Amino acid sequence: MTMPASVILCEVGLRDGLQNERNILSPEDKLDLLEGIICAGFKVIEVGSFMHPQRVPQMADTDRLFHAVGSRNDVELRALIPNLKGVARAAACGCKKVKLNVSASRRHNLENLNMTPEQSVAGFRDCVIAAADNGIAVSGSISMPFGSPWEGHIPPEEVYAIIDAYLQVGISEISLSDTSGMAMPDQVEELCRRASEKFPEAVYWLHFHDTRGMALANIVAAMTAGMTRFDTSFGGLGGCPFIPGAPGNIASEEVIRMCDSMGIATGIDVRKIMEVSRKARVLLGQE
Amino acid sequence: MTMPASVILCEVGLRDGLQNERNILSPEDKLDLLEGIICAGFKVIEVGSFMHPQRVPQMADTDRLFHAVGSRNDVELRALIPNLKGVARAAACGCKKVKLNVSASRRHNLENLNMTPEQSVAGFRDCVIAAADNGIAVSGSISMPFGSPWEGHIPPEEVYAIIDAYLQVGISEISLSDTSGMAMPDQVEELCRRASEKFPEAVYWLHFHDTRGMALANIVAAMTAGMTRFDTSFGGLGGCPFIPGAPGNIASEEVIRMCDSMGIATGIDVRKIMEVSRKARVLLGQE
Repeated sequence: MTMPASVILCEVGLRDGLQNERNILSPEDKLDLLEGIICAGFKVIEVGSFMHPQRVPQMADTDRLFHAVGSRNDVELRALIPNLKGVARAAACGCKKVKLNVSASRRHNLENLNMTPEQSVAGFRDCVIAAADNGIAVSGSISMPFGSPWEGHIPPEEVYAIIDAYLQVGISEISLSDTSGMAMPDQVEELCRRASEKFPEAVYWLHFHDTRGMALANIVAAMTAGMTRFDTSFGGLGGCPFIPGAPGNIASEEVIRMCDSMGIATGIDVRKIMEVSRKARVLLGQE
Repeated sequence: MTMPASVILCEVGLRDGLQNERNILSPEDKLDLLEGIICAGFKVIEVGSFMHPQRVPQMADTDRLFHAVGSRNDVELRALIPNLKGVARAAACGCKKVKLNVSASRRHNLENLNMTPEQSVAGFRDCVIAAADNGIAVSGSISMPFGSPWEGHIPPEEVYAIIDAYLQVGISEISLSDTSGMAMPDQVEELCRRASEKFPEAVYWLHFHDTRGMALANIVAAMTAGMTRFDTSFGGLGGCPFIPGAPGNIASEEVIRMCDSMGIATGIDVRKIMEVSRKARVLLGQE
């Protein structure tokens, strides 16, 4: 079992954590948390998203956050965007890295957008061009590549087709995002290994939710397949808002502790991110 | 990542779960839980222990349980024993499978028993002889082979020496028991793989606690090293009695669900063991 010497973690708590909380934090509080995350050692941070503010009110202040932070060379601050409008908002507030997303669920895509996932991704070409014009880098994510509540199983071939579609439009940084928490380690190892073999030009991120308690096992499985980039969320925020205590994103603390124990460098101080989690829980009224 | 087609799970909740609970169940209640465990499909069950009743009052009725169950050919019912006295008690109540234990912590052993772990195991020879005279099979466990609170790291060579000592006294069924919850997947994979290579004649069990949330990842790691026998505990009972909610043994339900998802046969009905857990929580006053 060959483990990587080091991994890169992206702290997604400010986006995927907070967007699933009922209480909405002020931009000042978010900035305070962001400062703590940077201070803990994270070099890649998902700060927010440029979705419609009525759809995701928790992220409505993402533009303000980017304005407030200003230009930074020491960390990569990224935001999730839905479409071309997101690129415009990113350009306007100085955000230099955006992430598009498509669901791996064919059925979900056809029913909601009347397109296959590959067609959705092909439509991202405009975003890539507009982003390039504004000096913005673009990454892409594929949600539910390990299983969706609609189909259950997702054939790996369909995931490869989406990765291929991303590469076709010039997006080579790709996140496999198990938002449904349905991934199992053997499946993760196989999909990661085969995707790397098929598309070695891609840079892969893995994003696991701990819904079924499998996130750490899945991260280890991905590591054995050579993966070294993982999204984590301070305090494991981002569970279902309607089920108290339901596990959400895998907690940054847990992943850092595991890496520390296994001698895998993360560059992050676990105590400092625990302090961020504590602060966030106080701000969210969870203490 | 090669996964086994099937695994054998030993339900240890009646022993390692209940012995860490404050409330003591009646023999009738335990029998009811045992019946549920058998009905769920477990073929190997750790029913109790023959420790001194004052030291472990929760297990004081283990003899009564074995008497009540009588002789059964369809399931293996085992008990933990400390020494030769345990063999005598097993023989008297019809228990046909016992398990001895030694700590892998050299320091712990020397300070408490003035013996190395290998010397402790060598002393088990009397138990093996007495057990054989009574038609009782003997297995052995090594606790904390992946790390102890005393030394921290345990050199693998010391674990191999203990396995060797067990084989020398005629005990070839050996449990690697991470009671301190300190095991990490890479370490588990390596120790399991190398132990199997060094001592292919041994039959290995793995026993993980979820203290640090690593139990499922460790089970998957052990599976990749060819391991197929795991202890699990209904409801994840067996946490620290002084820390509410502290994770204890890995929950049978979680392991069975993971195996079901990965297409690994266990022969156990997860819904039936969930019903056992629910009953146990009611009996323990945890609902």
